[in-house]
This record gives sequence, C-alpha cells and structure tokens, in this order.
Amino acid sequence: MPELRKDPVVGRWVIISAERSRRPTDFEPIDNLRKGGFCPFCPGNESKTPPEVYADRDNGSRPDTPGWRVRVVSNKFPALAIEGDLNRKGEGLYDKMNGVGAHEVVIETTDHDAEMSALDLPQLQRILHAYRERMVDLAKDTRFRYMQVFKNRGEAAGATLEHGHTQLVATPIIPRRVSEELKGCDQHFEIKERCIYCDIVDQELAFEKRVVCENEEFVVIEPFAPRFPFETWFLPKRHQRFFEDACGGGYELLARVLKETLARMNTALDDPPYNFVLHSAPCNVPKGAIHYHWHIELIPRLTKVAGFEWGTGFYINTTPPEDAASYLRGVRLPAGLFEVAREQQSNGS
Amino acid sequence: MPELRKDPVVGRWVIISAERSRRPTDFEPIDNLRKGGFCPFCPGNESKTPPEVYADRDNGSRPDTPGWRVRVVSNKFPALAIEGDLNRKGEGLYDKMNGVGAHEVVIETTDHDAEMSALDLPQLQRILHAYRERMVDLAKDTRFRYMQVFKNRGEAAGATLEHGHTQLVATPIIPRRVSEELKGCDQHFEIKERCIYCDIVDQELAFEKRVVCENEEFVVIEPFAPRFPFETWFLPKRHQRFFEDACGGGYELLARVLKETLARMNTALDDPPYNFVLHSAPCNVPKGAIHYHWHIELIPRLTKVAGFEWGTGFYINTTPPEDAASYLRGVRLPAGLFEVAREQQSNGS
Repeated sequence: MPELRKDPVVGRWVIISAERSRRPTDFEPIDNLRKGGFCPFCPGNESKTPPEVYADRDNGSRPDTPGWRVRVVSNKFPALAIEGDLNRKGEGLYDKMNGVGAHEVVIETTDHDAEMSALDLPQLQRILHAYRERMVDLAKDTRFRYMQVFKNRGEAAGATLEHGHTQLVATPIIPRRVSEELKGCDQHFEIKERCIYCDIVDQELAFEKRVVCENEEFVVIEPFAPRFPFETWFLPKRHQRFFEDACGGGYELLARVLKETLARMNTALDDPPYNFVLHSAPCNVPKGAIHYHWHIELIPRLTKVAGFEWGTGFYINTTPPEDAASYLRGVRLPAGLFEVAREQQSNGS
Repeated sequence: MPELRKDPVVGRWVIISAERSRRPTDFEPIDNLRKGGFCPFCPGNESKTPPEVYADRDNGSRPDTPGWRVRVVSNKFPALAIEGDLNRKGEGLYDKMNGVGAHEVVIETTDHDAEMSALDLPQLQRILHAYRERMVDLAKDTRFRYMQVFKNRGEAAGATLEHGHTQLVATPIIPRRVSEELKGCDQHFEIKERCIYCDIVDQELAFEKRVVCENEEFVVIEPFAPRFPFETWFLPKRHQRFFEDACGGGYELLARVLKETLARMNTALDDPPYNFVLHSAPCNVPKGAIHYHWHIELIPRLTKVAGFEWGTGFYINTTPPEDAASYLRGVRLPAGLFEVAREQQSNGS
C-alpha cells in the first residue's frame, strides 16, 4: 500500500509509492521515454492494459477490443491504491495515511504518433469529454477530494510512453497548490466580492498584450507573473467552478482554443515538451470552493528548474509574457487548420 | 532593469529578467551545459569575469590574478540588478517592483574538473566560509531580506558551466518557500514552545533508520516526507537560526558530513546531477525569525518533475527514505577518505 506522508514544517503531502520502487541503479530506464517497440496503447493490444473503465466506441464493438476512439484504463503501475481506508496515523511528530486513490490513463487516439494538436476538433472534444466522464464518476467515491488531470508530453516533461495519453489521479486530500489557489480566491472575494480569475480575464481582455487567442467562451493568456517562458493559461470567460460543467459537456470552443494554441506553440517553439494541467474545484468538500474558477495551465519545458527555484519557490523567467504572447500571435498558422486536420482524421480512421 | 511580479492568486513572486531574454529559438544553448572550450573560472582567466568581491588568496597575490583558492565574483548575467530602488507599483490588480538584488558566483576551486566531494576538508571549509563572508556582507544592504545560496551540479540540475561553482542571490523579499518554513516553525512553537527542526533532529536520532551519518554538531537524514528519491537534509543538532553563526565560522564538522554524504551519494547513484540549497533565516526583518533553524537540502535529480507535481504541488516518490538511508549507509567508502583527498589536493595545487 502506498503511503501519504506530510512534511511537518510546510505541510506538504508526498506519495511514497514503494510498490513502484526499485534499486537506485534502476532509475534511468523507468523515467526515460520508451521509443519504438511494443505499445500497449495501440489498437489490438487492449489485453495488455488493465480493463477499460470508459471508452468512446463504435456501436457494437466490445470492451477491451478495437473499435474505440478514446479509451480510459487504470494505470498499470498506479501511484495510489484504489482499495482501502485512509487510516490516518501519527508517527511521533509526523502524520501519514494510506495512499488511497485512483490513477487512470486516457488514451487519446488510436494513432501512435499523433500529437494532440494534430487531432481534429471532434477527437479533441472526445478526449475532453472523457476527462469529464471520469471526473464525474470518480467524484462519487466520497474518499476522494480532488481529481488531477495532467498530460506529460516528451521526455523532458516526464513522459515515459510515446503514444498520446493523459493521466488522472484522484487523491483523498486537496493538494497544496490547489488549496493555495482556493485561499487566494477566498481572500479576493472577501475584499472585492468578485472572483479573482474573473477579474484577471477582464483585465487581460482590456490590456490585450498578453492574450494569445480567444473565442466566445475562452481566452488564452500568457499570465502576468509566469514561472516559465511561454507558460500559458486557458480561462473560461464565464465564472465556473467545475470543468465538468463547462460547455454543456461538449467542449467544442475549448477544443478550438486548445488546438490553435498548441499549433502556435508547436510552430513557435519547435514541438516543445510540455505539461498540461487541469485545475478544477475539489469534490466532496463541505463548503464547495464557491469562489474557484477552473482553468488549464500549459507549461512548455524549455528551461530546467534548478537550485534557486527549489530553494526559494520563486522563479527566474527570461521571457516577459508580453513578448511570448506577441510571438505566439505572430505565428502563421496553416490555412484551414481545423478543416485540414478533420480530413486527415477521417482518412486515417 | 529586471522586474519582480507577483501572481495575484497564490502570491508567488517571479523574476522577469528581460535583459537575459532571447528569441524563443535561442533557448537550447543557454540552458545546456557548456562542455570543454574556454572556462572563465579557471586560474589565469580572472580578467574574463567581473571583478572579485571576495577571495581566499595566497599572501601577496593581487585581486583578479591567480593565487586564489576560492574566488567570488558578480554573475556576468545577473538575474537581479544591484543598483536602484524597489519602487513598488500596481498594474490594475497586479503587483510589481524593480528587480533589485545581488547575484554572485562562488568559484569553488582552481581545479576545473574537481567535484565538491573530491575536495579536501580545508578547501570545503574555505568554500563554506566564503558563503558566510558574502552573506554577512550582503546583509548590510538593508534592501535585502534573504540570501539564497545554491549549487547546481550537472546539466539535468540546471548547471551551465562545468567548473565547480555555487551561486548566491540576494532578494528584496522573503521567498515563498522560506516564508512557509518560517510559518511552520512559528505554528509549532506556538503549540509546543519548541523548535520543530530541533524536534525533528531528536526524533530522527532516536529512530535511526533515516540517518545517513552524523557527528557532534550535525546529523544528515533522509527526511520523513521527501519530495524526491534520496532527498537529503543536513541539520545542525544545536538550535541556530543563521548559517553565518555556525561552527564559529570554521565549518570543519559541516565539511566532514558534507564530504562523507556526497561521497556516499556519488558512489551509490553514480555521480548524479544534484541541487544543493542552503536555508538560513532572513536578514533585516523586524521580528527576526527567532524560531527558524538553518539547514541544507541536497536533491539528486534522478527523476523528472512532471504535470502531476506542477499541478498539485505534491510529489510522487518511489523510494522510501528509510530504504534510501539504508542504501547510503551501506556504501563502502574508500579507507582514509579524508586523508587521501587531502593528499590529492596538495599534489594538484
């Protein structure tokens, strides 16, 4: 059973996942990207993954066989165990509990080589809808407080398999970073009686210089105080706590800004490794985080985090967000970005 | 002038250092380790760095010429500017100020290839003493609140020059991570009327299983809730806020545990890249952080930080600290580790 342990000074929880452990000399292979060879996520290899918990499938195709367009399975090497009670305990001045949670993998496409930005809009919508379905389902488990959806693309971003996939981890505690955001939202609301993210959206739309692109429902910005060069945020214009409630579950307008932004980023920065992180309100909490505003953070991994950042928790960023936004806006996208991709997809499937 | 900007939600400051900026296509070269070629830190090249602000030198040798054993210079590409006022300002709902601060480099040895663990004890003491001298001097500048001493070793840890060096950044604000530690210390003191780090030292010495090594003044542990495999803390056994006050400025017993731990780590993990981060109490603050306890964090960079960690601020660690400590303790060190190294050094200089 993995264990959750809390740092007694700063209150940060970590997952000690001894089941995944290995001898120190074994570090390299597991953390590196496996290239070529057998892929458990490709169609035809469904029996090599744990059974699917969700799939977008052709009518009539059976679970764990080909015929899917998006498929969600449990992680074969989960960081948290799905069975068991939390069993909170002390150990002298330390605090720990059982590492209970869910760890799932969303297989984004049948095409082993396709980057997210190359998928057509309906496929992106299917992926986003799969996130939603799993979040709604996992929230029914009252042990869970938070669902973290994230994607690591490329070796420098921590990906270990090439085939496009997103991960979902459900945790029994609200992670530190999310608590900090919730606290910031509450503090702002207490003073202003407004949502801070709504205020950010308004100010950025008026200022324009940090906006990458937008449509009726979403705005994509380089934030005012980014930790990393080309750190990018996707914000719904309308106040909304839960990703699960967005776009009526259809996600077309989100898929549009996602595709456009990834296309701009991949052209501008030569297909960078990146992390994609969804921030949504916690579930199963009494007060319900009513001032929260869900959003997505996209972090291209262009620079390395070093001692200064680990020591201080603050970041040196050599690219002002105004320059990054201007550069991304200046990228010339292929004519008919959305249409061309759609055609490719229907030929390929 | 670099700019300090604050994230309006979580309150995290970042340094936007536009002077160091470059086109997006220029990212790779600056972040990567420069191997071979001209080294500005080697003896004879003193004129290629900014003038020295401190050096441990042979009697009679002139500044910025050979004859030094440890040399400190300003960073040629500083993240913060030494001149100017803070000039705090708002920008709508955002906060910013001038990026005022100091950024210095401690050149640890004349030997281009020597890793810290290969240096003899007197040389390690000279390095630690150089940290102290610069911290004491910079603390006289009342604009500064914190001095961050850190070392990046190896490309994966963010080093860009091979020649062994440590960096020192003085900042006009107390960094977020340090504030969190201060708050944790204060909260513990309020309940227990004891220092939390002193309590950690006592519990770890009694438990033994997470101790790597110790002597009269220091204990080296794998902390209870480490973010990373083989994350290692150096703690003074006696309560002490400031690194500057430790060991009467001589640092012999710290040099000993540092050398032994690095030797164990380098043997166990095959010379890993690492970050070395000194945590000491802030300077020029009215209340003075009286419950703080200085320490050093050593983080070998064996795994990559990915989307889950960025999104949640909590970490998945596959190596329980008890296993890591046992593994490090089991490393067979060369007989006469301290003596052999001393001899090498005197031959080489």
